[in-house]
Amino acid sequence: MPLDTLPTPSALIDVPRMMRNIERMQRRLDALGVAFHPHVKTTKCEPVVRAQLAAGARGITVSTLKEAEQFFARGIDDIVYAVGMVAGKLPQALALRQRGCNLKLTADSLVAAEAIAAHGCEHGMNFEVWIEIDVDGHRSGVAPEDARLVTIGRALAEGGMTLGGVLAHAGSSYDHHRHDELVRIAEQERAGAVRAAERLRAAGLPCPVVSIGSTPTALAAERLDGVTEVRAGVYVLFDLVMHNVGVCTTDEIALSVLTTVIGHQEEKGWAIVDAGWMAMSRDRGTQRQPHDFGYGLVCAEDGTVLGDYLLGGANQEHGIMQRRGEPDRAIAARFPIGTRLRILPNHACATGAQHPEYQAVAADGGVETWPRFYGW
Amino acid sequence: MPLDTLPTPSALIDVPRMMRNIERMQRRLDALGVAFHPHVKTTKCEPVVRAQLAAGARGITVSTLKEAEQFFARGIDDIVYAVGMVAGKLPQALALRQRGCNLKLTADSLVAAEAIAAHGCEHGMNFEVWIEIDVDGHRSGVAPEDARLVTIGRALAEGGMTLGGVLAHAGSSYDHHRHDELVRIAEQERAGAVRAAERLRAAGLPCPVVSIGSTPTALAAERLDGVTEVRAGVYVLFDLVMHNVGVCTTDEIALSVLTTVIGHQEEKGWAIVDAGWMAMSRDRGTQRQPHDFGYGLVCAEDGTVLGDYLLGGANQEHGIMQRRGEPDRAIAARFPIGTRLRILPNHACATGAQHPEYQAVAADGGVETWPRFYGW
Repeated sequence: MPLDTLPTPSALIDVPRMMRNIERMQRRLDALGVAFHPHVKTTKCEPVVRAQLAAGARGITVSTLKEAEQFFARGIDDIVYAVGMVAGKLPQALALRQRGCNLKLTADSLVAAEAIAAHGCEHGMNFEVWIEIDVDGHRSGVAPEDARLVTIGRALAEGGMTLGGVLAHAGSSYDHHRHDELVRIAEQERAGAVRAAERLRAAGLPCPVVSIGSTPTALAAERLDGVTEVRAGVYVLFDLVMHNVGVCTTDEIALSVLTTVIGHQEEKGWAIVDAGWMAMSRDRGTQRQPHDFGYGLVCAEDGTVLGDYLLGGANQEHGIMQRRGEPDRAIAARFPIGTRLRILPNHACATGAQHPEYQAVAADGGVETWPRFYGW
Repeated sequence: MPLDTLPTPSALIDVPRMMRNIERMQRRLDALGVAFHPHVKTTKCEPVVRAQLAAGARGITVSTLKEAEQFFARGIDDIVYAVGMVAGKLPQALALRQRGCNLKLTADSLVAAEAIAAHGCEHGMNFEVWIEIDVDGHRSGVAPEDARLVTIGRALAEGGMTLGGVLAHAGSSYDHHRHDELVRIAEQERAGAVRAAERLRAAGLPCPVVSIGSTPTALAAERLDGVTEVRAGVYVLFDLVMHNVGVCTTDEIALSVLTTVIGHQEEKGWAIVDAGWMAMSRDRGTQRQPHDFGYGLVCAEDGTVLGDYLLGGANQEHGIMQRRGEPDRAIAARFPIGTRLRILPNHACATGAQHPEYQAVAADGGVETWPRFYGW
């Protein structure tokens, strides 16, 4: 099915761009001497993950146990579940381990560590657990110098579990947009994770893995001494938030939403398109950034950025396209009803989640449907 | 499956609340003497729509042709597609009509009207079309006094199509929160739609249907003279945006997301829960309203509002729960790891869309799984 016959709205992946993004990150991490475990929460899509593994990724990172189940069923068995484990999810994790999945769990509290150890002992399962380290105060984890770090490590080891390592995620990197700031946060992430590993080892505990990662820090880090692996997700498609952070150009954004102009309000300079928030997601991640792109940046059907046309507003199935600044009162003549456009999204993870499938556009213009899944 | 064994996150529908919401709207519209065509884009869920029809709805309104196809396949044939038709979607609409679906299309431009008439003539199909009226400048439609109104009507009639009526949606009602303002906008919506119908009739064109509706205006309208039917969607579940608009109490919100506490940052007064934006959606509709609820309002597992605890932040699979104002440094003791909570969402249409199914909780606590669909 060629591009110009696809129904709208559709989520397009520009496959050559995606392949370049995959190669860029893999080459970088190979040069830094660390293993790569891409975070598959961005796409939840097998062909994308196959391309990441083919390029050299050693395993994957997931945000839900459903992702672990789906990718394990497709033959991928090295999986890090990077969200704190709780008792209620242990039976699901146990079932994966019993079926042979090399699933690593995460904990950042004594309660979680003890629950994992108790469930493991009860069912004869030696769970591998990584301790989550808080390197920037943005969310979960124990600080590298926190006394609880060693307590949690001991509870796991003494409970008969495998203390596999530590993992950190410098999510605050998304709040910056200068390269020097990203370099600083990347070093803070590296240093915090390595320090935590050193403290565990000094206490006589094992800590083979030191895992860090976010797309901005993975692309900015100048050295990764002491780190053994990196996780990053959104780099595979990129988006306008990452563009504002400064780690990609708009020409590297591999995800867009194909849409059709369905009407106008000429005196306001509006074109109404059939990509509303259901197709774009409600993500307004660029709102607080240096350049606010509304609900997305408008491109021609072939992917050429049109300059200053944004999706300024969105209802469920209606998008309001307008020019930044002065309204374009010739918008109806410029983009007549039926015109097909692409919209670059703020946040690839959120936009992808609105679509049951991607339409993967190859270099020769051929289109293939790549299903993705959702839910828990 | 009882509530306390459901996995988290899950989207819960409180069925008694939903039934009361359905009865309230139906009783109101019966009293006002108009037919009701609920907008099913809110839930895309058969058991919900069956309950709306059983209460007296005469048909449904949809936002995508997929909704029309899915509900027609389930035996519902009176369907209004309330988004402007374009040429590219006409084959899909034609197929529905040829299979016996009483599908009504929408147009607000001469280009669209002519495209519909041309496709209808080519395939021997008399499409029924409603003209969209712009009553508040918030999105699509032609103004009631616009000369193009009659031109569009004539193009349809002379093209051999059925001019079925006019439809308006006062989406700007969402921007208000005082009853007198809602009454005023409801009257503006009614008067604008009726005026457009009168102009068509005065031009010798038929206009049997005068359709209006939004949840706030449907609940605020004091009279609906000249209106023949109403459309409204979110009333069936309600949400925090509607609470801020002033048309429901929090005790009437029938949708919530069940979640589990998975960690804490005590010194910040944070509890981390497993409902992030993937479970809540990125909708921040209460941000510009009098009460900003962050990503949602926290309730106990039984649905009791806990006061001032909000989901203040959200990553993909992590929510950050905190008290409004002064941080609760005893939050870990108050909500230990494993605590199950419900979060009331900002926007029921957006939150529902993140979930493959609802868990419908009956008055006796029994839970039934109600699938929903997504995509186009």
